Amino acid sequence: MVINMINYPSKINKPTKTKIKNFGNRGMSLEYDLNITNDYYLDKDIAVIYKKPTPIQVVKQKQNKIVDAYFKSPSTTDYNGVYKGKYIDFEAKETTNKTAFPLNNIHPHQIKHIIKVLDHKGICFLIVRFTSLDKTYYLPADKLIDFIKNNQRKSIPLSYFIQNAYEIKRKLNPTIDYLKIIDENERINEI
Amino acid sequence: MVINMINYPSKINKPTKTKIKNFGNRGMSLEYDLNITNDYYLDKDIAVIYKKPTPIQVVKQKQNKIVDAYFKSPSTTDYNGVYKGKYIDFEAKETTNKTAFPLNNIHPHQIKHIIKVLDHKGICFLIVRFTSLDKTYYLPADKLIDFIKNNQRKSIPLSYFIQNAYEIKRKLNPTIDYLKIIDENERINEI
Repeated sequence: MVINMINYPSKINKPTKTKIKNFGNRGMSLEYDLNITNDYYLDKDIAVIYKKPTPIQVVKQKQNKIVDAYFKSPSTTDYNGVYKGKYIDFEAKETTNKTAFPLNNIHPHQIKHIIKVLDHKGICFLIVRFTSLDKTYYLPADKLIDFIKNNQRKSIPLSYFIQNAYEIKRKLNPTIDYLKIIDENERINEI
Repeated sequence: MVINMINYPSKINKPTKTKIKNFGNRGMSLEYDLNITNDYYLDKDIAVIYKKPTPIQVVKQKQNKIVDAYFKSPSTTDYNGVYKGKYIDFEAKETTNKTAFPLNNIHPHQIKHIIKVLDHKGICFLIVRFTSLDKTYYLPADKLIDFIKNNQRKSIPLSYFIQNAYEIKRKLNPTIDYLKIIDENERINEI
C-alpha cells in the first residue's frame, strides 16, 4: 500500500528501491511529496497547482541543445495555481535543524513576492518540513511576515510553528493535504 | 515619449537602437510588451502576474554550470498570477498569418490545462497578436474551447476573433492592458 502511494502517479520518477528500503516514508523529499499531492489534486479534479520550472539563464546554445547555462535565484515562490477560483501561492522548504527554521532559506525576493501576493488577496503560505523531527507545517504567509517584522532573529523557532502553523500529517492520497488546511480555516477562507 | 515607454522599467533589456529606428512599436514582440505590462501592474500594485520560466531538462551539470540540457515542451500556459484574489492564467502567441491563427501554436497539453483552469473557475484566456495586421486580441478561453469542439479546422479565422475576442490596442503604460478587458466584461467577472 505504501509502495502504491509512492509510485502514484506513474509519470513521476520512482525513487530507487534502496531509498525506499532504507528510509521508508521519511526518506521522501518534501518536493516529491508535493509533486504527488499536486498530481492527485489534478487527477481528481480538486485543484490545478504546479511547481514552476527552475529559472535558468542560458549563456550559449547550439540549435536546441543548451551547452552553457546556470541556475538563477527565483524571484517568486515555487508553487502556484488555482483552487475554487482563488489564487494559491506557496513555497516549500526542508530543514534538518531540530529547533528552528533558518530564514536564509527564503530569498529576499521571495519575501517581497509573498507580501505582494497577500496584498492582492492570494492565499499564500509556506510548507516547512523539519526532516529530523518528521514534522511538516503549513505556516500562513501573514504569520511569516508578522514574525519577520517583529523579530530580529534569523530563524523561526519551532515553538512559533507549534503556535501559529498547522501540522500536516503525511498520509495516503493526498500525501500532504494542504488544501484541507485552507478549507478548515475560516481565517484563511475569508482572505 | 515612446522611448520612455519602451525603456520602462529599467530591469528589462533595452532593444537595440536600430530596432527602434527601423520598426518602432510594431517591432516589439508580444512577449516584450507583456513583460513591461506585467512589470507595470506589479510596480503600480495592480496585480502580480509573471511569465513562468521555460522548462528545461538538465542532462549534465558541472557544479553550478549546466553543460548539457534541452528545452522541454510546456505542460501549462506561460503566464499566471493573481488579480483581486482571483487566479489569472493565459498564453500569448504571435502569428504572421493574416487571415487565421493556426492552432498548432498551442500544445495539446496546454489545451488540457486551459480546460482544467476553466473547470476550477480561474480567469483564463489567450492573447493573440496578428503581427502583419498589428492587431492584438484577448480571446476568452471558453471561446477557444468552443471553437475547438465545434470545428474541424486547424486554425481559427480572424473573423472568429473579430466576433468573439476583444481587441487590445497598444498604448502607453500599461502597454497591453488586458486587465481592463477583465474589468469591463461582466461575463468574465462572473466566472
